Amino acid sequence: MAKKFFVEREKISSDGFRYRGLSSSRLENLTDAVFGFSITLLVISSQVPTTYIELQASMYSFIGFIFCTMLLLGLWNNHSNFFLYYGLHDKTTKALNALFIFMLLFYIYPLKYLFSYIGTAIYATLKRNLGDNSEALKVAWRDLAAADLNVLQWKDLIIRFGLGLLLIYLILVLMHLNANKKADELELSDKERYITKTFIHEYLLLMSVCVLSILIVLFFGGRAAGYAGGAYTLIPILLPLYHRYRIRKMKKLEL
Amino acid sequence: MAKKFFVEREKISSDGFRYRGLSSSRLENLTDAVFGFSITLLVISSQVPTTYIELQASMYSFIGFIFCTMLLLGLWNNHSNFFLYYGLHDKTTKALNALFIFMLLFYIYPLKYLFSYIGTAIYATLKRNLGDNSEALKVAWRDLAAADLNVLQWKDLIIRFGLGLLLIYLILVLMHLNANKKADELELSDKERYITKTFIHEYLLLMSVCVLSILIVLFFGGRAAGYAGGAYTLIPILLPLYHRYRIRKMKKLEL
Amino acid sequence: MAKKFFVEREKISSDGFRYRGLSSSRLENLTDAVFGFSITLLVISSQVPTTYIELQASMYSFIGFIFCTMLLLGLWNNHSNFFLYYGLHDKTTKALNALFIFMLLFYIYPLKYLFSYIGTAIYATLKRNLGDNSEALKVAWRDLAAADLNVLQWKDLIIRFGLGLLLIYLILVLMHLNANKKADELELSDKERYITKTFIHEYLLLMSVCVLSILIVLFFGGRAAGYAGGAYTLIPILLPLYHRYRIRKMKKLEL
Amino acid sequence: MAKKFFVEREKISSDGFRYRGLSSSRLENLTDAVFGFSITLLVISSQVPTTYIELQASMYSFIGFIFCTMLLLGLWNNHSNFFLYYGLHDKTTKALNALFIFMLLFYIYPLKYLFSYIGTAIYATLKRNLGDNSEALKVAWRDLAAADLNVLQWKDLIIRFGLGLLLIYLILVLMHLNANKKADELELSDKERYITKTFIHEYLLLMSVCVLSILIVLFFGGRAAGYAGGAYTLIPILLPLYHRYRIRKMKKLEL
Repeated sequence: MAKKFFVEREKISSDGFRYRGLSSSRLENLTDAVFGFSITLLVISSQVPTTYIELQASMYSFIGFIFCTMLLLGLWNNHSNFFLYYGLHDKTTKALNALFIFMLLFYIYPLKYLFSYIGTAIYATLKRNLGDNSEALKVAWRDLAAADLNVLQWKDLIIRFGLGLLLIYLILVLMHLNANKKADELELSDKERYITKTFIHEYLLLMSVCVLSILIVLFFGGRAAGYAGGAYTLIPILLPLYHRYRIRKMKKLEL
Repeated sequence: MAKKFFVEREKISSDGFRYRGLSSSRLENLTDAVFGFSITLLVISSQVPTTYIELQASMYSFIGFIFCTMLLLGLWNNHSNFFLYYGLHDKTTKALNALFIFMLLFYIYPLKYLFSYIGTAIYATLKRNLGDNSEALKVAWRDLAAADLNVLQWKDLIIRFGLGLLLIYLILVLMHLNANKKADELELSDKERYITKTFIHEYLLLMSVCVLSILIVLFFGGRAAGYAGGAYTLIPILLPLYHRYRIRKMKKLEL
Repeated sequence: MAKKFFVEREKISSDGFRYRGLSSSRLENLTDAVFGFSITLLVISSQVPTTYIELQASMYSFIGFIFCTMLLLGLWNNHSNFFLYYGLHDKTTKALNALFIFMLLFYIYPLKYLFSYIGTAIYATLKRNLGDNSEALKVAWRDLAAADLNVLQWKDLIIRFGLGLLLIYLILVLMHLNANKKADELELSDKERYITKTFIHEYLLLMSVCVLSILIVLFFGGRAAGYAGGAYTLIPILLPLYHRYRIRKMKKLEL
Repeated sequence: MAKKFFVEREKISSDGFRYRGLSSSRLENLTDAVFGFSITLLVISSQVPTTYIELQASMYSFIGFIFCTMLLLGLWNNHSNFFLYYGLHDKTTKALNALFIFMLLFYIYPLKYLFSYIGTAIYATLKRNLGDNSEALKVAWRDLAAADLNVLQWKDLIIRFGLGLLLIYLILVLMHLNANKKADELELSDKERYITKTFIHEYLLLMSVCVLSILIVLFFGGRAAGYAGGAYTLIPILLPLYHRYRIRKMKKLEL
């Protein structure tokens, strides 16, 4: 019967990892609630428009918000996969999850601040170059000017953002190391151990991009903030490359 | 035994579609949290009344809010049905769901703005014509005047609203197209494939109403905003008609 | 085995009603999210204390908030039981649930307003009579004075509150009537049909108390607001009496 | 098969307690939503930074927030374990859970106030001693000065905090006493009865630390607030000691 077949199929990831945490626990419910509110607050919170021009101006932050939401949903996906794959609820995982929640919440506002600034700047510049001269655009520029950042502050903001992301990925690495340590207890197959190590390597790769970005502003100062930020564009290039390499190697090893 | 019978019955929709996603995943939990929060904020957020008259005045937005809530719950229902029917959690669905969440959040405030304005206007006009002359009514009128929209702004608001709805339905269409592409994998029966196509057609119908509304203001300007808004009343007329036609056709085809 | 026994036991209510909706659907998840936020916002929202005296003053609303929270959790309990008992997710139930969510959200602020006022008044009067003369008490009195209600406003507030509660219970009655109509489909036993009717009667009893309270202020005006509010104390007297009567009758009928 | 083994293993706690509430009910969903929201609001709420210096200043409360979040997640863990271990959903549990939710929400702001003050004070002092002289530090000091507490207010705050925690633990004790009373019905083994009593003892231990802290400020006044707060450091010392003693005794008793 189709139904049964489907349920069976769902128990294994496309990589061939058997899901050990299919029934979500309260730990995951709680984290989902926190993620859901964070994302909602990120987009909605500080901008209750009361006049029409304010409403229009708030649209300028669109680009910033979409990046921001995607980053958060990406982290949620990582978190979700960990619990789906290993189904671990031991004390180490609980403690690391508590830290994860805390880091997430504490970095929501710097994140919003950074992305909203960049997004608005990009969009407003674009609009101005296209000859737009509306009230809303002026409000957006005024907001940008009010929040204007000097070179030292840019340096600080880049370090803060990098450090936050670094710590979040560090927590994910520690979670996977804990799962790896429990490999025998979880009866992970050779293939599953290999995939676990791939996860760890990938998070370490992400962490080193964060380190690179921080080093750029530490050595070259706030004026290099653009390059430091640009370093993150390495992620969508390096990560898929490394992932493909690991998958190819896995097939060679006949796991 | 009754219990068993009931559970069996629940596994199939009234149309005869076997539910493939009965146990809700974290993807759905997250989306529910976002929906729940959005609806709550929509009704509650910006209006913490501190005096009695403010409390009374806030009641004027009742009509606007009920439409707004119903629209959001309608979208939730569409989203919910998709996951219930197909139980898909592949990467395409995840990415589309992320976009869905983003669009939803980004259009909460314009939605609130639009419906709160219209609802308050209708109710306040009604009350004034009935001879009401209370403090609360004056506060409501003052709020309306403060948010007063000129013809150009109405045009813009109608386009914005139409575009938002259009994109949300587009995401739903893409989700269903993805399910349709996976029809063999999901072992959809002929009937289920037919119902899937019906869903897609209905969302396309909704999208074309949005396009019609946008075209009206594009051609006739903001003064035609009333007609552009009125175009949406086509939905509760056309949609059930088309749905009944498809069901009748399904029966003829003996699926 | 104990585990199994326990699970078995849980499938039947203490009244002998077989649970038909043990696995909670997304409809319930969404409603839980809305309830959770509402309760949280009710207690937390408008009062972010910045000085110590404000923090102290906010404690005066303790009594009001506890009533308010209990009322909401009581409604949640009614809602939760309905889905647990009948496990219905048909279109009527979905539509009624949407209305339920809307009514709930729309009546949060009047509820908060009313109970916070009454609670603070009671507690502040108590404190003053006990000779307290602190800064915080003065702040609480100032808040009370600012929100001061005249006789007409009391009348209006009592009507509003009564009407809100009346409509919420009406939705619950309609939900149960719908379940009753589907009694054959749900294969309700005679006992279960009897319990369903008991639910309906009890909600009708609650509704008539709301009507009584509204009638008091309609006939005697805002000065009778105390009596109109006091009418609700009939609930904890009449409801258990009627419940016991129905249970005793059920045993006599040997259901 | 690994999967099956794992699921089997998960049904028993590391102490050997069979989980009776594996499938989380709506009662737990609701409480999770409230917890998730509370934690999110605790960290995010009152501090929407609009200038860069405000953003930097908000980071001073880091230490306070991490303690606060950990305290809440600790309480969540206690709550979660209770429902996981006993799976009780009787009326007493429901009523106690309602009180638990209320106490939690009512103590969020005093908690935030206390920890944010202490955390900022510690961090700002540290920074000043390290020679920092930034704008952000000045903002943080100004905030501290604005919220400055005199001796009497410290006394009051310590009592309030202690009383809140005492009541929350009291509710947890009552919940476990209720489970203990139902031991036969739940078919608790001797070992499980022993663990239940261990829980109760441990919560009583936590309560007596609260009482100790309150007594210190009652006898020595607000100037002893530091010692009264310091009393809570007994918890991470006494609790593990007592826990180890009970586990050792359990092994001796060969349960």
